[in-house]
Amino acid sequence: MARCQQIKNQRIDSIVTTSTQYTVAALGEFGLISRITARVAPHESVITGIGDDAAVTAHTPGMRLLTSTDMLLENVHFRRAWHDPYTLGRKSLAVSISDIAAMGGIPRWALLSVAMPSDLPLDFIDDFMRGFLECASENRVTLIGGDTCSSRSGVTISVTIMGEQFPDRIVRRSGAQPDDDIWVSGTLGDAALGLRLLENGESVPEALLSRILNPTPRVTVALALAEAGLATAMIDVSDGIRADFGHIAEISGVGGTLLIADLPLSDMFRSQTAHLPAIPCHYALSGGEDYEICFTAHRSNRGKIVGCAKKCGIAVTRIGIVTKFSGVSVLNRDGSQFTALTEGFNHFI
Amino acid sequence: MARCQQIKNQRIDSIVTTSTQYTVAALGEFGLISRITARVAPHESVITGIGDDAAVTAHTPGMRLLTSTDMLLENVHFRRAWHDPYTLGRKSLAVSISDIAAMGGIPRWALLSVAMPSDLPLDFIDDFMRGFLECASENRVTLIGGDTCSSRSGVTISVTIMGEQFPDRIVRRSGAQPDDDIWVSGTLGDAALGLRLLENGESVPEALLSRILNPTPRVTVALALAEAGLATAMIDVSDGIRADFGHIAEISGVGGTLLIADLPLSDMFRSQTAHLPAIPCHYALSGGEDYEICFTAHRSNRGKIVGCAKKCGIAVTRIGIVTKFSGVSVLNRDGSQFTALTEGFNHFI
Repeated sequence: MARCQQIKNQRIDSIVTTSTQYTVAALGEFGLISRITARVAPHESVITGIGDDAAVTAHTPGMRLLTSTDMLLENVHFRRAWHDPYTLGRKSLAVSISDIAAMGGIPRWALLSVAMPSDLPLDFIDDFMRGFLECASENRVTLIGGDTCSSRSGVTISVTIMGEQFPDRIVRRSGAQPDDDIWVSGTLGDAALGLRLLENGESVPEALLSRILNPTPRVTVALALAEAGLATAMIDVSDGIRADFGHIAEISGVGGTLLIADLPLSDMFRSQTAHLPAIPCHYALSGGEDYEICFTAHRSNRGKIVGCAKKCGIAVTRIGIVTKFSGVSVLNRDGSQFTALTEGFNHFI
Repeated sequence: MARCQQIKNQRIDSIVTTSTQYTVAALGEFGLISRITARVAPHESVITGIGDDAAVTAHTPGMRLLTSTDMLLENVHFRRAWHDPYTLGRKSLAVSISDIAAMGGIPRWALLSVAMPSDLPLDFIDDFMRGFLECASENRVTLIGGDTCSSRSGVTISVTIMGEQFPDRIVRRSGAQPDDDIWVSGTLGDAALGLRLLENGESVPEALLSRILNPTPRVTVALALAEAGLATAMIDVSDGIRADFGHIAEISGVGGTLLIADLPLSDMFRSQTAHLPAIPCHYALSGGEDYEICFTAHRSNRGKIVGCAKKCGIAVTRIGIVTKFSGVSVLNRDGSQFTALTEGFNHFI
């Protein structure tokens, strides 16, 4: 519907820029859109960007289109008290870029819809957009369209991300084979542990806080693995490694064994949990919001994978083995079954 | 983020189908997604649909990608008391398809995100999806992905639509030339008049009600005009013809004159307003939600345009002339300026 599409070429110089005293209602829908549009850098692939009924983009010959969408609601996915608008803007795009990364794709274009209360300070949306567009720029993504509307109940954000990749480089969830290694990038459980500290009103070390508020999509390493043909299946870890590897296993028609002792934990995670009788591995297994990449790969490629990740500046760790029979088991250091407290995140529980 | 992506191949037969007693919470996120996925018809252009981190689609060689997104919020864009879930599902997609139509595009793929309260009856989402997927099927659109999440404040819907078209057939807002005719499809003001009756608690004739609840995107005629090279600029009419033609005028660097006497009004509109001292033309000019197509065209093409529209089974009407100088004027039957009560819809007023 044209209503919510953006007005190109509207004069920006008429917009008052001392934004602290202004709300989105004072600026108005089209003023707000112009304000955003003025900050979007052009890209050669974008034939018609913000400002018409639909954006027009030119794809790369031979590549397939990759598309994903996420919705973030205030007090469900984020709290304004915890998430400053700048990092919220970054995260809103980062979690979607993570989906393109998980396919081995090259992120290209984004659409952003924001529903906001009329009395939302203009500073909020300015800072939000600064974060969103910085994350876009870092990942070579161009904002090509979106929607703005009034909300009667908090801020709602919807992001659609589009990427591209050649057909033979796309990595799906469905390619895991028995005896493949199970790998994960970075460290697990930091965001979940940090969130628990935050919810308990305890002080949260910056290293954990940044994992909650400002996750980094693992585009570079995922793309490098995909382009080298090293990953047989891949997913991004947002619900916890146990549940997300479980998706790979289910769709691939295999199972897997994850080894507790091999889960990569950050120094901060270890130091924050050092006083506990046992490492709270459920944060690393089922905590969620890691935004790491979990992938499977033939065991003959171990050396290449470590080398590939090293070039990308991120550690990858083998955490288990794909098995022939369905089901994901998690083994303690002594070989006994680990009993998880939760099975991952379900939005409706 | 993988969390909200859909699980392919999950067993549907385990889902209880007597839905009246169930809520979305009882079914759970993944059960809900499986339930939706099972109803989506496959399409040859969709290499990987619902069920991975991102959808994979194959575009038509030589065509550009057209993309648009819309967000619909309960009690802002719709009321559950007025919109039954089936027609809400249809409308959620129809208003987005209208944007692709307005570019002369061929609608192809859609992503749908729905945030919903945990206690929402499963029947609601079943009926919503039936409407959404029927509208998709009628317009040859395939649902390829989306997001589901829990809401604490009503239903929120976000739809991203993608279409395609060859570069030389895409019709933008920017191509209107002085002396072009201004045309519009169908009739104007029906939805706005119907909405006013609804808000006043008066009975609303079915013909008006269907224009509010169940708009038809004008894909066929818009595509035919685009493919015949007859339209110089095009937009869909969602904020009222005055505001939406105003967008064409502004971006094209022209102006225009709209003639009140020539605005196409339905018989129902006329009969419902027959008792009034004057036809309430502000509904037709600025009411919004018409979802007709407004386009400009060279005057030498009048015959071809009427013929093209006739083949598509929809009337088109000349309602004014593009002028060299900026600004849109609306003239009464006697040539005097019409004074509009409102200037179109602004979400933040």
